[in-house]
Amino acid sequence: MEENKDTTIKVGIIGATGYAGAELVRILQRHPAAEVVWYGSRSYIEKEYASVYRNFFQVVENICKGDDLNELADRADVIFTATPQGFLSSVISEDILQKVKIVDLSADFRLKDVAVYEKWYGIEHKAPQFIEEAVYGLCEINREDIKGARLIANPGCYTTCSILTAYPLVKEGLIDADSLIIDAKSGTSGAGRGEKLSNLFCEVNENIKAYGVAGHRHTPEIEEQLGYAAERELVLNFTPHLVPMNRGILVTAYASLKGKDADPERVRAAYEKYYGKESFIRILPAGECPETKWVEGSNFVDIGFVIDERTNRIIMMGAIDNLVKGAAGQAVQNMNLLFGLPESTGLMMMPMFP
Amino acid sequence: MEENKDTTIKVGIIGATGYAGAELVRILQRHPAAEVVWYGSRSYIEKEYASVYRNFFQVVENICKGDDLNELADRADVIFTATPQGFLSSVISEDILQKVKIVDLSADFRLKDVAVYEKWYGIEHKAPQFIEEAVYGLCEINREDIKGARLIANPGCYTTCSILTAYPLVKEGLIDADSLIIDAKSGTSGAGRGEKLSNLFCEVNENIKAYGVAGHRHTPEIEEQLGYAAERELVLNFTPHLVPMNRGILVTAYASLKGKDADPERVRAAYEKYYGKESFIRILPAGECPETKWVEGSNFVDIGFVIDERTNRIIMMGAIDNLVKGAAGQAVQNMNLLFGLPESTGLMMMPMFP
Amino acid sequence: MEENKDTTIKVGIIGATGYAGAELVRILQRHPAAEVVWYGSRSYIEKEYASVYRNFFQVVENICKGDDLNELADRADVIFTATPQGFLSSVISEDILQKVKIVDLSADFRLKDVAVYEKWYGIEHKAPQFIEEAVYGLCEINREDIKGARLIANPGCYTTCSILTAYPLVKEGLIDADSLIIDAKSGTSGAGRGEKLSNLFCEVNENIKAYGVAGHRHTPEIEEQLGYAAERELVLNFTPHLVPMNRGILVTAYASLKGKDADPERVRAAYEKYYGKESFIRILPAGECPETKWVEGSNFVDIGFVIDERTNRIIMMGAIDNLVKGAAGQAVQNMNLLFGLPESTGLMMMPMFP
Amino acid sequence: MEENKDTTIKVGIIGATGYAGAELVRILQRHPAAEVVWYGSRSYIEKEYASVYRNFFQVVENICKGDDLNELADRADVIFTATPQGFLSSVISEDILQKVKIVDLSADFRLKDVAVYEKWYGIEHKAPQFIEEAVYGLCEINREDIKGARLIANPGCYTTCSILTAYPLVKEGLIDADSLIIDAKSGTSGAGRGEKLSNLFCEVNENIKAYGVAGHRHTPEIEEQLGYAAERELVLNFTPHLVPMNRGILVTAYASLKGKDADPERVRAAYEKYYGKESFIRILPAGECPETKWVEGSNFVDIGFVIDERTNRIIMMGAIDNLVKGAAGQAVQNMNLLFGLPESTGLMMMPMFP
Repeated sequence: MEENKDTTIKVGIIGATGYAGAELVRILQRHPAAEVVWYGSRSYIEKEYASVYRNFFQVVENICKGDDLNELADRADVIFTATPQGFLSSVISEDILQKVKIVDLSADFRLKDVAVYEKWYGIEHKAPQFIEEAVYGLCEINREDIKGARLIANPGCYTTCSILTAYPLVKEGLIDADSLIIDAKSGTSGAGRGEKLSNLFCEVNENIKAYGVAGHRHTPEIEEQLGYAAERELVLNFTPHLVPMNRGILVTAYASLKGKDADPERVRAAYEKYYGKESFIRILPAGECPETKWVEGSNFVDIGFVIDERTNRIIMMGAIDNLVKGAAGQAVQNMNLLFGLPESTGLMMMPMFP
Repeated sequence: MEENKDTTIKVGIIGATGYAGAELVRILQRHPAAEVVWYGSRSYIEKEYASVYRNFFQVVENICKGDDLNELADRADVIFTATPQGFLSSVISEDILQKVKIVDLSADFRLKDVAVYEKWYGIEHKAPQFIEEAVYGLCEINREDIKGARLIANPGCYTTCSILTAYPLVKEGLIDADSLIIDAKSGTSGAGRGEKLSNLFCEVNENIKAYGVAGHRHTPEIEEQLGYAAERELVLNFTPHLVPMNRGILVTAYASLKGKDADPERVRAAYEKYYGKESFIRILPAGECPETKWVEGSNFVDIGFVIDERTNRIIMMGAIDNLVKGAAGQAVQNMNLLFGLPESTGLMMMPMFP
Repeated sequence: MEENKDTTIKVGIIGATGYAGAELVRILQRHPAAEVVWYGSRSYIEKEYASVYRNFFQVVENICKGDDLNELADRADVIFTATPQGFLSSVISEDILQKVKIVDLSADFRLKDVAVYEKWYGIEHKAPQFIEEAVYGLCEINREDIKGARLIANPGCYTTCSILTAYPLVKEGLIDADSLIIDAKSGTSGAGRGEKLSNLFCEVNENIKAYGVAGHRHTPEIEEQLGYAAERELVLNFTPHLVPMNRGILVTAYASLKGKDADPERVRAAYEKYYGKESFIRILPAGECPETKWVEGSNFVDIGFVIDERTNRIIMMGAIDNLVKGAAGQAVQNMNLLFGLPESTGLMMMPMFP
Repeated sequence: MEENKDTTIKVGIIGATGYAGAELVRILQRHPAAEVVWYGSRSYIEKEYASVYRNFFQVVENICKGDDLNELADRADVIFTATPQGFLSSVISEDILQKVKIVDLSADFRLKDVAVYEKWYGIEHKAPQFIEEAVYGLCEINREDIKGARLIANPGCYTTCSILTAYPLVKEGLIDADSLIIDAKSGTSGAGRGEKLSNLFCEVNENIKAYGVAGHRHTPEIEEQLGYAAERELVLNFTPHLVPMNRGILVTAYASLKGKDADPERVRAAYEKYYGKESFIRILPAGECPETKWVEGSNFVDIGFVIDERTNRIIMMGAIDNLVKGAAGQAVQNMNLLFGLPESTGLMMMPMFP
């Protein structure tokens, strides 16, 4: 399955055998200007990558390598780290960053306040000196900063969906940001490929539950980013739920409207102001509710809202594919920005239905 | 499969071929003091009941009959109406109620304010004269009133789960009832057996969506009942979601705590005060989140809660099987009360896992 | 949830925290003449059983114990061993068997030829001296022998469904037993609760595959039992498949009809001859195909067949719940026989649909 | 989402709002040399196509049109008919075929013997004069004939998978074609988007069943094509099953090996001989079993086999995505051949896992 690409970008992936890593491979296989040169996977070192993900049989013929970032920095133009928290911060260096761009899919450089990181993640941050320069890679909001960065903190899956769903209304001051309650529902791939009881088919199927209530690590990330929009510190409630499906995140966010007059047109105008020209954000017509299946396999974010005049609250809803816009797709979108490519290059996958 | 029962109660079911009707049949087959004598189903009249639900092959040998309530009133001791809104109110009469008890699984007699009914359901109420005497059949709360009633309004599935989850905290004034936001998730059997696009496997599977946002008909029912607890009128937000599973409702409810001091012990004490002796309500240990699979097939309600000190809100969670405690199980629980049986008679089905 | 039972039978379970063990608990909780006195689980010793299976919260209040069969033999009337292959044969003794009945849900005593056991299971059999007396616990076929036994080899899940589906036609010589091909499909609970990659939700969901092709260990068990019916040695093909559902086994079995005249009435008569009076076997009307959902949660076996005159083959189909008739239900059915109870005692669970 | 394509091929779709039609749209949106100019759907005429399939919101902006093949023949270079049986044969004409190529996804022109068609489909064939020239569009087998055709009969989904799985062994005479038994399992999208009870989520989920046993209409299609390979008439058994997943077909095919010496190398050599250079067929290593998830969303066919020396039978297994290689993908593959494009143009979608 070799093809001639106008290859310019050599890509290394550390953590290539997690679900997010495999989604990077899926997307980059079809990217016209990138080539994966390093399939890093500590667990499967020396094994054929396609033996770990049989969907790539006869497509990917590479062997899994280790996670030596220094060696990789000499071979790649960009490195994606789809690794556990703490990995990148323990190995990153100025030397590496002078050679290669890094898009980190872990949480290591998402939070600007190292104390908040250490509190929520329970580990010491080993490279706080790079936190300042890291750019939070939510492309629709930080596009210009991303272009010139060396280190991108790729947002979390829940975070991407939560922030994008609420951002324009917080930014425009249409809602009371302190009233924000985010009830999120995720497919099971978000829990990773770990061999854990809670990930077993029979434990997840025909079941739904909340987890990490009032303590999920994506909470401070959402608060920080929406805090920038509100121009002040925020706390909010975020509750994730595990849904018996492979992919997809749906966010249902509640907030009180400022002022007495619920005005759907002003709300719509706010969404249009920030997202009207975005390739990947689709604002649904009045009253329509997004469905995760409408975005599955794609980089789209679908957003809808309903105003409840009785309670003077707005219900905002957003849907993404957690592995695409919530992880690998957004990482490639960041890569495109970093290398001056059109932002949607290689990312116009059509959502697959059914 | 005949058995000798100490049969005392002759049961008629109208709407026996819907999912709630079939669940009544499943439960009553194992009930030691009841016998179904009438399988009413306008759609399948003259057909074998077991041809409509093949799980009852060689178990139920009856033929489906029509929906003539007057005839049935002469043959049964209690009638369950698992029918569309408006059916019972169009046929009920004083004559019938003098002969037979009625447990109505539709919404016809759930709301005391006929104007509210007519607004949310969009139909004229044909028998408002019976609204006053109808007892709202939430057994844990209205037990004593149920015992002497002729007409029971069996609560809705979302309603049962929502009310029971929040009731003690509203009643005890621990939460600000105006701040209540109820985010509910339901299995697909809640949508019924209608041959509709939105019920198709390929539309529901691998998908999640909200629906009826700010307009679902269970909203005023929740508001009315929790309003009694709060001793004033309430409005709140209720958002249902469709989950790719057959059974189960999970409610995640958010509210602001009154006072500054979040006090888990007071919250727990409130739950224990109202539910400590209940057969079907299980208060989970601190920090545990209910899962719908833990109650599947049973009449249990599992409740858990987490206090978020950062936002001074409480997150309450409740789980039921929508067809059992949310419909047929609760209806039988009402029947047991109506006929002086121990409330859990025939209802101690063990939850099925996995 | 205490109730007064006419308790006569004290039950010990070894392997109580596997899925089959948990299903034994579910069934025995509602059994009117048995009480579980020992929840054995080496992995969860000293832990609350209900913390391992939250569906039993406030229902089962026992603590998990170890797997000391000698101690248990003094306390119980019957022991169910839902353990890995090789466990029971390594600890069983004449002394134990003189004190207590054993129903073994593992394969240790299913095969009469120890060489066949050792070849297919790859382990040495440590107690071949008990193989002869062990009775193969397929109640519908070996009922009389079971009644007087000390040691019951409870059949495998695939085996139960495969044998019962084909047995009457092999026994009556209506099909060419050498032509038998059994294509079986199982829900994922059949794979157990092991924390393995192949059991993860995202690996099983939206997927189907064959496994163990031409090498699954239930093959010799089917061959031995159908060989008794044919009164000669048999080899056949058996292919299991993993289906994205929790419970259920469907067997589709193909065989050439003996003689040229396909005769549905003779086939039906054969099924009726052997199963006509059985409580748990339901022969479907002509042309109907069983569905696993029709038997879910119950001890039923549904059987249907179609004759293809073009190829002179018959397609036999059988459906069971793998955890009930395929494991725990059948084990309790054996217990009932061992203790002189009506065979269906505690086993008339209605199938749950949907 | 407009892009500049080197558009050469104008495509019309009749039946664009069925699942196969929607998959054509998904694939053609990313095809570099084709443009859909007509979204025909009798049911949704004048409605926005993207309102019927919300995944195409802001991607497809066209309005649904009718099914006037004559008008469409003037506007398109190729017409895909994803319509019920009997539609194309009732409207096709020489005039139309002189203007436009037709790829028919229905069964109208798949069978060469009109009597067989009329017997299995139960309708009169209205255009038997075009049967002879129609080319059976199984690209890997009929590639050369397809290139020059006007009318392509795109194979059925079960058929594609069944034939490709068995073809080389029948062609090379390694198996006894009369012994072929094909046990097939399909995701629910194969049943279409019809609002029928049997397609409802709650009827399909947590369930598996066989259907159309000994009578499914894909049977004669498989027999005819494999008959060409065997160079004689064949009858075989084909049994489809409905699996609770959206997409995917798995075929498990059984046959007796000719000769006594089971020889895996000869079998592998036969597969390699016919498929070794194919872009879309992947022969798995020895002993590996295909999984539908490995091909989901792609045009791949994965094939594996196991020889059972005990029974001298071979078990062949094939997996496809029923909507891609089983319908729309193969249709586009045919289009590519018809218009002289590289066969894999626009079809190198990576399988999506999980």
